[in-house]
Amino acid sequence: MSQELTEYQGPATMEKITSLAKRRGFVFQSSEIYGGQSGAWDYGPLGIELKNRISRNWWKEMTQLHDDIVGLDAAILMHPRVWEASGHVENFTDPLVDCKKCKSRFRADMIPEENLAAKKCPDCGGELTDTRKFNLMFKTHIGALEDESSVIYLRPETAQGIYVNYKNIIQSNRMKVPFGIAQIGKAFRNEIVTKNFIFRTCEFEQMEMQYFVKPGSDVEWFNEWKKRRWAYYEKMGVKMDHLRWHQHGPDELAHYAKDAYDIQYLFPMGWRELEGVHNRSDYDLTRHMQFSGKDLQYIDQDNNNDRYIPFIIETSAGLTRTLLMVLCDAYDEEKVADKGNDDDWRTVLRFHPSLAPVTVAVLPLMKKDGLAEMAKDIQHELKQDFSTDYDQSGAIGRRYRRQDEAGTPFCVTVDYESKDNNTVTLRFRDSMEQVRIPRAELAERIRKEIKAYKRIK
Amino acid sequence: MSQELTEYQGPATMEKITSLAKRRGFVFQSSEIYGGQSGAWDYGPLGIELKNRISRNWWKEMTQLHDDIVGLDAAILMHPRVWEASGHVENFTDPLVDCKKCKSRFRADMIPEENLAAKKCPDCGGELTDTRKFNLMFKTHIGALEDESSVIYLRPETAQGIYVNYKNIIQSNRMKVPFGIAQIGKAFRNEIVTKNFIFRTCEFEQMEMQYFVKPGSDVEWFNEWKKRRWAYYEKMGVKMDHLRWHQHGPDELAHYAKDAYDIQYLFPMGWRELEGVHNRSDYDLTRHMQFSGKDLQYIDQDNNNDRYIPFIIETSAGLTRTLLMVLCDAYDEEKVADKGNDDDWRTVLRFHPSLAPVTVAVLPLMKKDGLAEMAKDIQHELKQDFSTDYDQSGAIGRRYRRQDEAGTPFCVTVDYESKDNNTVTLRFRDSMEQVRIPRAELAERIRKEIKAYKRIK
Repeated sequence: MSQELTEYQGPATMEKITSLAKRRGFVFQSSEIYGGQSGAWDYGPLGIELKNRISRNWWKEMTQLHDDIVGLDAAILMHPRVWEASGHVENFTDPLVDCKKCKSRFRADMIPEENLAAKKCPDCGGELTDTRKFNLMFKTHIGALEDESSVIYLRPETAQGIYVNYKNIIQSNRMKVPFGIAQIGKAFRNEIVTKNFIFRTCEFEQMEMQYFVKPGSDVEWFNEWKKRRWAYYEKMGVKMDHLRWHQHGPDELAHYAKDAYDIQYLFPMGWRELEGVHNRSDYDLTRHMQFSGKDLQYIDQDNNNDRYIPFIIETSAGLTRTLLMVLCDAYDEEKVADKGNDDDWRTVLRFHPSLAPVTVAVLPLMKKDGLAEMAKDIQHELKQDFSTDYDQSGAIGRRYRRQDEAGTPFCVTVDYESKDNNTVTLRFRDSMEQVRIPRAELAERIRKEIKAYKRIK
Repeated sequence: MSQELTEYQGPATMEKITSLAKRRGFVFQSSEIYGGQSGAWDYGPLGIELKNRISRNWWKEMTQLHDDIVGLDAAILMHPRVWEASGHVENFTDPLVDCKKCKSRFRADMIPEENLAAKKCPDCGGELTDTRKFNLMFKTHIGALEDESSVIYLRPETAQGIYVNYKNIIQSNRMKVPFGIAQIGKAFRNEIVTKNFIFRTCEFEQMEMQYFVKPGSDVEWFNEWKKRRWAYYEKMGVKMDHLRWHQHGPDELAHYAKDAYDIQYLFPMGWRELEGVHNRSDYDLTRHMQFSGKDLQYIDQDNNNDRYIPFIIETSAGLTRTLLMVLCDAYDEEKVADKGNDDDWRTVLRFHPSLAPVTVAVLPLMKKDGLAEMAKDIQHELKQDFSTDYDQSGAIGRRYRRQDEAGTPFCVTVDYESKDNNTVTLRFRDSMEQVRIPRAELAERIRKEIKAYKRIK
């Protein structure tokens, strides 16, 4: 990139994305009939399909395609000592202040400094309390007693589940350094300020990979993983001028990090973190060794049984955040003249076909004369291998619009000629072009089109 | 089934399963280096692959192959009123008693009645407290205040997320009764007595489908779903004589249920519930209508806009429990004479190939003479489409045993002849037979073998 975009210039706004997401069943407000539960969202029929495809795609990339990376799925409920070792019990806090008059609550680092200095509420001018530390971990109790001995936390990150299992995995899967462990799972943070739709929430999902390397090779591996993660987004077909690196400055760097870069995406609300690539040094394993009393050194059997604590290179992406990115990235509005009406606009989600919730929709031109039956029959054939939809209601142009808005890359239309010569038309979402092909070639053609897909806009 | 098995007679024991699961990286104790966290388990490299395949298989069956079922992924953190409406706040309790002397705690329904009547501890004979209700929901607080107003629960079941979203889904996806909503996700119960490995845990995963039908058609649909779920296990290739129906008697029937059957599996520890098929009547939607004040009636546009509250037929399976079932079902021990040593036994997991964590392992007979390079090359080709493993260490017989124990259905061996004529041997896990085939036909042959798989033992 020679020139960096400074501001989002596409057609999406957070309002449009939120409204489309609800209207089409990507994302609903959690517990909406009860007025909503802040900080949590529900993924509807299209949303969960999109989320599944994003996570499967990442999982395949990380585990199936990397010989030296295996998967893990650790529990959300971990032993409380884990969070003492990780530093979360002590340090995972936000600074909060209250207004004594209007009872509003603020994050101290998010109100103007002059208010904080004068201890005056930015809303009503009332007096502010002293700043106090507020731990972001959700706390609950396990067992029948509710006391200090039964406290347990919802994990605020998935990474620690990997660290505490690293020796088990070396043993059971005969791994040798360098190697990685990949994990996808939920994490929970009691965020006082949740915002930007599904961008910052109390309940979210992470896709993390922790790569264990020999100390001294960490800088090289750190650079290698920066390269690979960047290439991954290229392969996903994301607008690459909407991505940039952001290096953590000395004041941003976490206590465990030797070096850290974020991949940021240019959302409608601006540049925001999508994924972090961090050199976590030997901090985590050293701490768990201290707190657990277990020897977590790696024994290098190929090198005279050398013992050392591996350094860890982490790639940590938000799954739900990636879903928001994919929605924003795919969103387009376009003037279309295909219906002879040049005022006609369409909203189209230009998902990569391998991510689209519905791969192919089958549409009979009319319900009658056996067209619906033929279309249903084709759908039933295709659904063994593809995610399909069937729609027979309304004008064909409206049905195309509905599929465009859901991001369906292929529509198959069954018309009178189909019955005559066993052909169908295949319509492409992005170009809106149509080709007539024999019905028997349909599945194979779709497979080829998915592989050969290039985004045209 | 003319005759029902009364007792488990296979080679598996819970001890063998637990030990194999740990040794090979299917399941680890959670936070093991800290002494373990009871009620929670971590899924290792083979375990998460198995779990993913079980859940994807169920998901495909329920959503992709059923035109009238769509997916959902609701949050774990729901509005607390949901659990008042569902009855969980009031009724989701276990009866507990404590021993005043030895401080042991018991579920009152699990100690001998004479002890309860005499209020004598079954362990030490000390005096027992009165029985008290203990709610099984994990409780936490959201927001900065820890008081009654901020209480929130970890969902104890996934079903309620479906009910509160049913109107949203009808609207966004234009569903018409009868239709279903499928969901896979975690749920949490503060079980005082967890046992039988991953069978009963505090953190677990459910695969649920809620099917909305017109009142009056519920009995018919209930029977239909009983049929379909039974057929599903047949398709999975499970030992069908290890499955049976158990109808809930009047004393077992939940307050919301009109009729309920469980599918039980004969585990090494006996017959236990695997999945429930329940007629939940209109209980849930009626309650949410009362508690939310929202009209949750379905409007039947095809029938004069008739309004009614649908009845719900639920199919609710445990994902982690299904994984345990699949492990037990696949477990076999066999005397093998293939190495000329007739004392030789092997442990083999006879997974259906579509569920096996590793589909194909590539093994060079020797490392030298370019065999390792050729084998690596074949693995890299196969891994685009299959989950693969590569193993070059130890005698070939030992490597086969390792793959048998991991349940890998196919091994590809590269030997000197392979280099001469570009062929490989394909070895089948169950029969241990080997065939020599051209390398170019390998991928297609594996695909065919997966489709045609029939369990032989």
